[in-house]
Amino acid sequence: MTHLLESYAAGRWYRAPDEGTQLLDAATGDEVARISATGLDLGEMTTYARTVGGPAIRALTFHERAAALKALAKHLNEDKDELYALSLRTGATQRDGLVDIDGGIGTVFSYASKGARELPNDTVVLDGNLERLGREGRFLGQHVFTSRPGVAVQINAFNFPVWGFLEKLAPAFLAGLPTIVKPASQTAYLTEALIRRIVSSGLLPEGSVQLLAGSAGSLLDELTVHDSVAFTGSAHTAGLLRTHTNVLHGGVTLGVEADSLNCSVLGPDVATGDPEFDLFVKGVVTEMTVKAGQKCTAIRRTIVPAAIADDVVAAITARLEKVTVGNPANPDVRMGALASLGQREEVRKALQSLRSSAEIVYGDPDQVTLLDGDADRGAFLSPVLLRAQRGAVEPHDVEPFGPVSTVLTYDSLDEAVDLAARGKGSLVGSVVTHDPGVARTLTLGLAPWHGRILVLDRDDAPESTGHGSPLPMLVHGGPGRAGGGEELGGIRTVLHHMQRTAIQASPDMLTAITGTWTTGSARRDDGVHPFRKSLAELRVGDTIASEPRQVTLADIDHFAEFTGDTFYAHTDPEAAAKNPLFGGIVAHGYLVVSLAAGLFVDPAPGPVLANFGVDRLRFLTPVKVDDTIAVTLTVKQITPRTNADYGEVRWDAVVTNADGDPVATYDVLTLVAKTWPQD
Amino acid sequence: MTHLLESYAAGRWYRAPDEGTQLLDAATGDEVARISATGLDLGEMTTYARTVGGPAIRALTFHERAAALKALAKHLNEDKDELYALSLRTGATQRDGLVDIDGGIGTVFSYASKGARELPNDTVVLDGNLERLGREGRFLGQHVFTSRPGVAVQINAFNFPVWGFLEKLAPAFLAGLPTIVKPASQTAYLTEALIRRIVSSGLLPEGSVQLLAGSAGSLLDELTVHDSVAFTGSAHTAGLLRTHTNVLHGGVTLGVEADSLNCSVLGPDVATGDPEFDLFVKGVVTEMTVKAGQKCTAIRRTIVPAAIADDVVAAITARLEKVTVGNPANPDVRMGALASLGQREEVRKALQSLRSSAEIVYGDPDQVTLLDGDADRGAFLSPVLLRAQRGAVEPHDVEPFGPVSTVLTYDSLDEAVDLAARGKGSLVGSVVTHDPGVARTLTLGLAPWHGRILVLDRDDAPESTGHGSPLPMLVHGGPGRAGGGEELGGIRTVLHHMQRTAIQASPDMLTAITGTWTTGSARRDDGVHPFRKSLAELRVGDTIASEPRQVTLADIDHFAEFTGDTFYAHTDPEAAAKNPLFGGIVAHGYLVVSLAAGLFVDPAPGPVLANFGVDRLRFLTPVKVDDTIAVTLTVKQITPRTNADYGEVRWDAVVTNADGDPVATYDVLTLVAKTWPQD
Repeated sequence: MTHLLESYAAGRWYRAPDEGTQLLDAATGDEVARISATGLDLGEMTTYARTVGGPAIRALTFHERAAALKALAKHLNEDKDELYALSLRTGATQRDGLVDIDGGIGTVFSYASKGARELPNDTVVLDGNLERLGREGRFLGQHVFTSRPGVAVQINAFNFPVWGFLEKLAPAFLAGLPTIVKPASQTAYLTEALIRRIVSSGLLPEGSVQLLAGSAGSLLDELTVHDSVAFTGSAHTAGLLRTHTNVLHGGVTLGVEADSLNCSVLGPDVATGDPEFDLFVKGVVTEMTVKAGQKCTAIRRTIVPAAIADDVVAAITARLEKVTVGNPANPDVRMGALASLGQREEVRKALQSLRSSAEIVYGDPDQVTLLDGDADRGAFLSPVLLRAQRGAVEPHDVEPFGPVSTVLTYDSLDEAVDLAARGKGSLVGSVVTHDPGVARTLTLGLAPWHGRILVLDRDDAPESTGHGSPLPMLVHGGPGRAGGGEELGGIRTVLHHMQRTAIQASPDMLTAITGTWTTGSARRDDGVHPFRKSLAELRVGDTIASEPRQVTLADIDHFAEFTGDTFYAHTDPEAAAKNPLFGGIVAHGYLVVSLAAGLFVDPAPGPVLANFGVDRLRFLTPVKVDDTIAVTLTVKQITPRTNADYGEVRWDAVVTNADGDPVATYDVLTLVAKTWPQD
Repeated sequence: MTHLLESYAAGRWYRAPDEGTQLLDAATGDEVARISATGLDLGEMTTYARTVGGPAIRALTFHERAAALKALAKHLNEDKDELYALSLRTGATQRDGLVDIDGGIGTVFSYASKGARELPNDTVVLDGNLERLGREGRFLGQHVFTSRPGVAVQINAFNFPVWGFLEKLAPAFLAGLPTIVKPASQTAYLTEALIRRIVSSGLLPEGSVQLLAGSAGSLLDELTVHDSVAFTGSAHTAGLLRTHTNVLHGGVTLGVEADSLNCSVLGPDVATGDPEFDLFVKGVVTEMTVKAGQKCTAIRRTIVPAAIADDVVAAITARLEKVTVGNPANPDVRMGALASLGQREEVRKALQSLRSSAEIVYGDPDQVTLLDGDADRGAFLSPVLLRAQRGAVEPHDVEPFGPVSTVLTYDSLDEAVDLAARGKGSLVGSVVTHDPGVARTLTLGLAPWHGRILVLDRDDAPESTGHGSPLPMLVHGGPGRAGGGEELGGIRTVLHHMQRTAIQASPDMLTAITGTWTTGSARRDDGVHPFRKSLAELRVGDTIASEPRQVTLADIDHFAEFTGDTFYAHTDPEAAAKNPLFGGIVAHGYLVVSLAAGLFVDPAPGPVLANFGVDRLRFLTPVKVDDTIAVTLTVKQITPRTNADYGEVRWDAVVTNADGDPVATYDVLTLVAKTWPQD
């Protein structure tokens, strides 16, 4: 008897009292494990997530959460042999397993890095600009994102048991949400092995992750406002989830990433023999055969100009002939098995439907030559290429979740866009062309129907990650049939897990609530120049208001000569007088900010290490000859770096003239030591 | 016989063949109009929107759409008397009518302004930063938003027949979508009058707006992927819409803004007699009585410290006693009628439920003293204040959509947050306090449960727009019970109407697709300095690569002395050597950008009128003594201003040293004349 998978629930591993259901090796038919969630207390799991996991995660700042993810990714990366071995048993080849396992861990690394670089070292994210709601600036608006006090439930597909879990865990964790994962049973042994490693590492706060190994049962009954379900799977099941009362009436958020009829379009500019022709053919064959075509992003519809269709079919066929099918454990095998015999049956049924308007031009659904595989017990299937009749309906409606693609032909770019759109919304499309005009027309035509579009040509091919690969920094999900959800996309998904709220308040209250200094709120000048304060001493609102300085014609002349910036508005009184915006000699903008720095800088060595940048500099009022300027510099935001002995300080800078008009506003970015003097 | 309302469908006014249903004046019971959509071809309407309206709007750039909205808002603003007169018949007072009519037109003005200022003069919006997907920069990712080729359907509530329509129309139109509006029958005569003015003005492209006056019938059956429904109304009806097959399975997007049990929380720091005490009481009474409490944003739950509850109840009661109820046409009337006798019955039923755990402390549901009103025919109701028992359930579940609020008490801030959260998600909450710590705790505690939070105190009160007023620049919508939707929020809602797509491509292809120059793509140097080119001549990619210039110690010394920026890293070799980032004397960042300007500027008068700003300046490599720098300036984005003879040009600036390392990168923002020489 093999291993009965256990659930990780409410802080302990739970073993069901019954024998469970067999999970079979996709290639050999041997039992890998058994699975059962009988007796599991789902209410206890959700309560535990809300009361133990959530609060523990939300006690950390975004940077601390990012650091935990980084440590986790490093730990998982150390020893993957057990995961690789289990992956082979799902029917995946070694290369397929890398995409799942290393791809999943890479996604965690990516989120760790994005979290540290793009989120504040805080628990609140500011969204968009400050909105001035009254004339005098006493009433302001600022949107913020805060963590939802809920549970992030994942209901995953069988095809990526590692990546599918980690790509959802990382953004939810960064957002402050505990996760309950319910993997598809067929490959749940891989997810279980991964979660054992995560739990035993102790690198995430207890309660951050729970595993439901087995049937989802009444899990949705336990969910309420602020809980979310991220579902990956069929559009049919998605439709069922959408009708659950807690989704319809209970405020549970449902995100769907469903299978879709993705297309790849070959541009009309591409001739047989062009690099793009080969790239297109190679792309189609890769997407048909990686994971035996069991990818939500695989190319189901191969859309080509009618004039070149015969050549495309011949070239794809020639490549498919070289694809060896068999036991994925054999290194000479290029394509492994489908996940189960049942899955193969599903694909055969889909093929039957497709054949009503398309003919098979490569492969036999009922027979395949195997390299080292058991044809009776393994879920093997030949790659199958079809060619559709004009006007065929099925290729746009029927999804064969296996190594299958259908060739469709077009005569005009409009027709190509129309064919792509008939998929009613897809995760990804690709456009293969070397013509910028074709690229623009096809890409913008396809864009409303897709979550991601790959534009492939000889230039980006050497670095391209391919049609089928979602990347952590790009959104994954598509409209319509693809489910309408959005995953990944860097910080975008983190924010999808949070609540956006518009806060209306006075400047002082906004500063208190957000921890970021807000224009109009109190400034603090305690007599110590803020450049003398380390991060430990510096406070939001600390200010230096400079002495005034007059800007003379000699200064402007001199600056023009010294820098070489002799633009007429600074040097030629007659021409400057004709400038519609200035009406006379004005100081260079760069002169103004240079003089301002001279006014606010404290020169001696101190905690301020460097000025590394300036943001949103705007010149608002021209500085004319003999105008007097002064600058006020105020600490706006303090962001200690987790892994350095310094942090970033963003300063609000306002340069004003003698009338008090703002001459220039900008943010000055500096690096400041955490303590001073440094040890 | 009064007017039978007509629908505006597929380019013409449609009059139903039957007599229709009576719509009665809320205060007098007289017939105002009749309504019927019998025989209306809903399929024709959606097809017309998709094939006529949508393409016409999307042929315009965002700036052109914004200009059309501005012209429309001006036109509607010219003569509002008819609208004001009809508004009185809905039971709304003149002041209520201003909120609806002028508030709606103001929202269109706001979107016109935001569209011109915050969107490009194009049809594609770039989202977020360029993502480098390969080491060599040949494969990049850029998210874009494109218009969905669908229909934006509005199903509106009866309470804001003008604002409710315009606040949804403006963002949808900016996004490139045609609108079909189905107003609530009860007050549809006001929406019909407005749409007659819009249609006859000809200011929006034909097909942009259609009106369904009458029952929605099978409208949802006609919708498909890329169509959206924005519903405002009860949570119950929202639940029904969510079960429509085209929403469940057809890819139709449903946005809900439902009634919610909004709260106002009085901080524990506030004592009777404090300005915040009066602000709180005044806010509650205003929200109870404006529109006779028929606002989704009204305060249903008045949450106060137990210790001060008696004082609060007394103060609210005292103010309510001064509220005159009666015919809204009478200028002395403060509160008008509910929309209909049926609505009043609904409120009475809700009051019945509330009384199981709360006692009425002001008002009588069955009797009210009227000023100039017909008690038999008008839907009048007294304001009713209740005080709940501890632990009461009904105030968090039952929504009386009328002039009703319930007082609840708390002992600790945690309990206050918990009470607020028991509403299961609300549109808006307010926090009334003058203590920054209380403000932070309550606001961040309430934030995940709210779409908007007003923090009110003596400082912002003079400019505050109040608890109940959604503003065009702030999001309107809330999680959970409030529907989970998001309207308004400036450009945020425009983007909700569009599809986000990640484009993966080479730099050159990204430039071609987006119309914005992408780092790494081809630069064009045709021998003419780009500062000599007007907007008419300038092209994205036009470049000037400067001569090199050496930066000497004398330059640095001189700049330090001249500007006064004598920071030690520029002036003190010994101290600079100890700086962990520099290890020796470095040039000022401001010196580098000043010299760079000297290198790229073409000095003579020409089409470049001014440099108005700099974005995202980052100093990447220190410039050491005697380093040589050069700068490359490339046209990144060209944005002609619709109403000026110049436009904005954003330039990509890269300063490099002799090794080719990037020293500084930034965007230079200039104003450039459309033609040169100007006439």
